[in-house]
Amino acid sequence: MPAPTAATVDSVLRHVDAVFDQSRESLFSLLRIPSVSAQPAHRADCQRAAEWWRDQLSSLGFATDIMPTPGHPVVVGRHDGPAGYQGPHILFYAHYDVQPVDPLDLWHSPPFEPQLVDGPHGKRFVARGAVDDKGQSVMFLEALRAWHKAGGGIPARVTVLIEGEEEVGSVNLKPFVAAHKDLLRSDLGLISDTGMWDVATPAVTTRLRGMIYTEVTLHAAKRDLHSGLFGGSALNPINALTRILGELKDENGRIQLPGFYDRVKPISNAVRAQWDSLRFDEAAFLGDIGLSAPIGERGFSPLERLWARPTADINGIWGGYTGEGSKTVIPAHASAKVSFRLVADQDPNEVFEQFKRFVTERLPKDAHAEFTSLSGAPAFEANLESPWVQAVQTVLRDEYGKEPVLMGSGGSVPVVTSLKEELGIDTLLMGFSLDDDQVHSPNEKFEQTCFHHGIRSHARLLAKFAGG
Amino acid sequence: MPAPTAATVDSVLRHVDAVFDQSRESLFSLLRIPSVSAQPAHRADCQRAAEWWRDQLSSLGFATDIMPTPGHPVVVGRHDGPAGYQGPHILFYAHYDVQPVDPLDLWHSPPFEPQLVDGPHGKRFVARGAVDDKGQSVMFLEALRAWHKAGGGIPARVTVLIEGEEEVGSVNLKPFVAAHKDLLRSDLGLISDTGMWDVATPAVTTRLRGMIYTEVTLHAAKRDLHSGLFGGSALNPINALTRILGELKDENGRIQLPGFYDRVKPISNAVRAQWDSLRFDEAAFLGDIGLSAPIGERGFSPLERLWARPTADINGIWGGYTGEGSKTVIPAHASAKVSFRLVADQDPNEVFEQFKRFVTERLPKDAHAEFTSLSGAPAFEANLESPWVQAVQTVLRDEYGKEPVLMGSGGSVPVVTSLKEELGIDTLLMGFSLDDDQVHSPNEKFEQTCFHHGIRSHARLLAKFAGG
Repeated sequence: MPAPTAATVDSVLRHVDAVFDQSRESLFSLLRIPSVSAQPAHRADCQRAAEWWRDQLSSLGFATDIMPTPGHPVVVGRHDGPAGYQGPHILFYAHYDVQPVDPLDLWHSPPFEPQLVDGPHGKRFVARGAVDDKGQSVMFLEALRAWHKAGGGIPARVTVLIEGEEEVGSVNLKPFVAAHKDLLRSDLGLISDTGMWDVATPAVTTRLRGMIYTEVTLHAAKRDLHSGLFGGSALNPINALTRILGELKDENGRIQLPGFYDRVKPISNAVRAQWDSLRFDEAAFLGDIGLSAPIGERGFSPLERLWARPTADINGIWGGYTGEGSKTVIPAHASAKVSFRLVADQDPNEVFEQFKRFVTERLPKDAHAEFTSLSGAPAFEANLESPWVQAVQTVLRDEYGKEPVLMGSGGSVPVVTSLKEELGIDTLLMGFSLDDDQVHSPNEKFEQTCFHHGIRSHARLLAKFAGG
Repeated sequence: MPAPTAATVDSVLRHVDAVFDQSRESLFSLLRIPSVSAQPAHRADCQRAAEWWRDQLSSLGFATDIMPTPGHPVVVGRHDGPAGYQGPHILFYAHYDVQPVDPLDLWHSPPFEPQLVDGPHGKRFVARGAVDDKGQSVMFLEALRAWHKAGGGIPARVTVLIEGEEEVGSVNLKPFVAAHKDLLRSDLGLISDTGMWDVATPAVTTRLRGMIYTEVTLHAAKRDLHSGLFGGSALNPINALTRILGELKDENGRIQLPGFYDRVKPISNAVRAQWDSLRFDEAAFLGDIGLSAPIGERGFSPLERLWARPTADINGIWGGYTGEGSKTVIPAHASAKVSFRLVADQDPNEVFEQFKRFVTERLPKDAHAEFTSLSGAPAFEANLESPWVQAVQTVLRDEYGKEPVLMGSGGSVPVVTSLKEELGIDTLLMGFSLDDDQVHSPNEKFEQTCFHHGIRSHARLLAKFAGG
């Protein structure tokens, strides 16, 4: 099979431009399906969204099935690409489900009636799912369609995996992947669910922090006690818990679990130089949320702290009396949810053990601690020498006429871990959202220019896979 | 007016014994009224309990009124005593309301159907309010009745003040006392709502710890944040709150507010010797609640820590996500309820200021703290040289044939403060409950022997006021 010529790629891109209004209508038709995975009332809508994907992929010649899970179904479509295809088998992952829309009264238009409105960067789409992940995933679909219509057919071997439970924790995805390894066997993952640096500057996300999310409960007396009758004699588990968790970091923000930093690796000078060149405005970043002074480890740049350093955050705490007024209680127990963002080679289970040891060593006599690990995933770091990471960079450079940023993300994308662990494949993260897209919030939007460039970038990337 | 003779006192005490079954029935008739002040469904029952007291006091010649408050009514009865009475004007305080009965299924009999059952100390009464405070308060009523019937009349000038909101914080009592100073003007308070040392050893409570109960909220970002996107840069108010509150005490249990101990006074050698002689079994005290190792300040005896040393307890804490599973949030704020038990001359408002300063000095940049004082009362310490404290000791020594213990209590009795601040009077605390009376719990009980001795002790004390 010959690689696509530059002329073929050009005609595909011209087709993208020519039918752009139809691509937008394609997205809008998906946005009109209120596929809120968290709400049982929308179960049939989730099924409809799965059927929408099946129908679209089938129309492009994909062998497509809607496959059941204990929750919402998964759509799997496969296309072998051209005869004699020598490139990588691509696994494109996306999700058709969206977040709930509450609070509804803050929306300026009905969340499932997509609007085309004016904004500072031109037109934008406003709807629940406009960007996350319907907007981002339909870009890939429209790129496939452009190749199908104007490029002589789907140019690469592609498996499409669309789940319906990303917004409720993807609890059934990893077991699904594990149970269907043969069906999903591929060489490279591709996900469009991340962001750009800014509206004019494309980005590849090459790092994701991992996480271990724990819950700890300290137990003391066997019942709640009166603080007058017992105060000064009986152990108070809230006092003990605050004392222990208050020691999680030292005054320089360094996390105090013994061994915690053993597997943390510094970033390379090249990465540091690139991040420094971005001139990240941490003051503006914090100013937007009403803060002015960064916390985190001293001696690291802002982006390093956000993308390449681990954290220890207490995400929730509760114990004793929390209602109106006063109740003089020494409670029997107190609890907290404590999570650590992980980087480089930190092992979630090892950090969980370190945390248990940290707490246990500080327990007062009579207290005992109960621990639960609620979720864990190691960090992800793309191999910057990989030809496919470089292909994404080339594609974005060609499309935007500007060097793409190699970004990190402080958050996790759990499916990246599942694909690595179950299928042994790395994942490319090329995304087109902006920081102000209001993901998960009222008036979620997606810039039309991002959507348009995103289709074109995916069309270009498909050519790269095919050797073009 | 001549003081009562020993013969008169004897005949009153013989009368108490002779009509004891009627006294128990008198208590039982009050116990049958479910006067749960916390529950609006029992509003009429609270009114009935007030009417019960009005009727009883009226029948003994008291000028009695039911007086409204913004909550449940107060009963005030006044008797001038014999003509020419020279002794102190006594203000007897009690409450007719009781705690809710939940959990009802743990009761062995209906909580408002008083039972006479066998126990290790003989018969006992089981019902909600059996001891707190219906049982204890009816002892005084029956002592008055015995004087009325067999002693030639009420021997002292007595004002009885019975409120109906003690179990819901006595919010209307202090304003009521302040608004009726003339009506309530008296020389000495008398309350029966405290305990004995054990069933054979009477006690006068001569010390109560005070308290300042506060709530603190730390505010950070102006909205909840995603811990992946912001962790390592944005301040987490739960981390900050645990760090600050974790420093409340040092490793020796010493409270770290600057100036906190300035007004704390050591107990006298005499008091220390008396408390040491009690051989308080702290191991058993803690063993009952599943603990083994006392906390509190090092270098003080168990009773000293419970009765004569201040405390710092976190009574409640909350912030962030506290539901099932995980949510990767850095919350906008976190809160805690923190109370300090106070002793000697510690001033609640001063300690509140010390706490505010302690927290404020430790606040990270960008955090701000909001403080509320929810209740405050100074400690109470009876003057052991007072003739009336000594009269109570004499009465109890005569009644039990055993030296009474001068006890402390770790808890507060807020009305003692109200009487001191509004009427300028000290209060005698002579009570007859035992540690295992299940106050506020299912199967609340009162020992018949305590009730009987309690009536006799009050009858003897009335004679003392009259110079007998």
